[in-house]
Amino acid sequence: PSRLPGYATHQVGVAGAVFDEDTGKVLVVQDRNKMKNAWKFPGGLSEPGEDIGDTAIREVLEETGIKSEFKSLLSIRQQHGAPNAFGKSDMYIICRLRPLSFHISFCPHECLKCEWMNLTDLAQTDDTTPITHKVANLLLYGHREGFEKVDIAMQELPSVYVGLFYKLYHRELPELYENIARMD
Amino acid sequence: PSRLPGYATHQVGVAGAVFDEDTGKVLVVQDRNKMKNAWKFPGGLSEPGEDIGDTAIREVLEETGIKSEFKSLLSIRQQHGAPNAFGKSDMYIICRLRPLSFHISFCPHECLKCEWMNLTDLAQTDDTTPITHKVANLLLYGHREGFEKVDIAMQELPSVYVGLFYKLYHRELPELYENIARMD
Repeated sequence: PSRLPGYATHQVGVAGAVFDEDTGKVLVVQDRNKMKNAWKFPGGLSEPGEDIGDTAIREVLEETGIKSEFKSLLSIRQQHGAPNAFGKSDMYIICRLRPLSFHISFCPHECLKCEWMNLTDLAQTDDTTPITHKVANLLLYGHREGFEKVDIAMQELPSVYVGLFYKLYHRELPELYENIARMD
Repeated sequence: PSRLPGYATHQVGVAGAVFDEDTGKVLVVQDRNKMKNAWKFPGGLSEPGEDIGDTAIREVLEETGIKSEFKSLLSIRQQHGAPNAFGKSDMYIICRLRPLSFHISFCPHECLKCEWMNLTDLAQTDDTTPITHKVANLLLYGHREGFEKVDIAMQELPSVYVGLFYKLYHRELPELYENIARMD
């Protein structure tokens, strides 16, 4: 419970799992300049002051040309001391996005490949990272049984600092429990 | 999708909602030196290299003398430009903890009050912050209908960097979907 001024200790990376419920396809890329050509979700680092969902949407657009909208968070990873993090800890967040366009126009400086892949294929391939595999399984669970089972939903709340708002992510709370004070 | 070296943009604060399922009580504090004496969960800033759950456990112990263990994440807040964040963005994460001791011995430099409060009272009081109120409702929902409804569960996975592990937080995935590759 330090009273010292805070200082930044983390970089925040965000990836977007753009999933099209109509076709069952998900947008995946293979990065250039990586040791293993693994399928993953497009993403990158948050800019200062940028909201998580906005980073995901921006990075997906820049890398793949696909427009999308934010739906939820699917996973949060915390990692310390990764070789590319320059001694900082990193938070890496994967969002569920819904596509608003479908024509891929990928950035060849960053991506080796980019495609709409069947979600079931992504869940089954060995050419991916453990976290992408896990999120593919979460998406498949959500697609088959309802996304409320996997979504970490977003809500905007007023800050204690007048005029400021913030985004809070948590499990969906039934209406009944939103007004719990009036229940008992 | 910047290729520039990353730099830290966020500080990470973590609070612990220590809830005792046997008594229905939750550990709350009132900070000194705040304008409004609102009940909240004890917490503070993550130290470099420290895992989220470890920060929650450490801060709860330092502020209140209560020992606890990590159960899950309940909520994640992202905020930019708060007056106490020195121009940085902040992530503020509330964990669900289980108490391992019950005798309060609080730090008088930080806390004005500290007590085990009935969760239903916390969910109903006006003397709290919007985020604490929200998390009290989430805890009540979990306590009454099962914590799997509100928990963002933790799992340890191997990094692509050999020998490194990281913690991944997401909704619990049924066993069936963990091995989806063998389902179809």
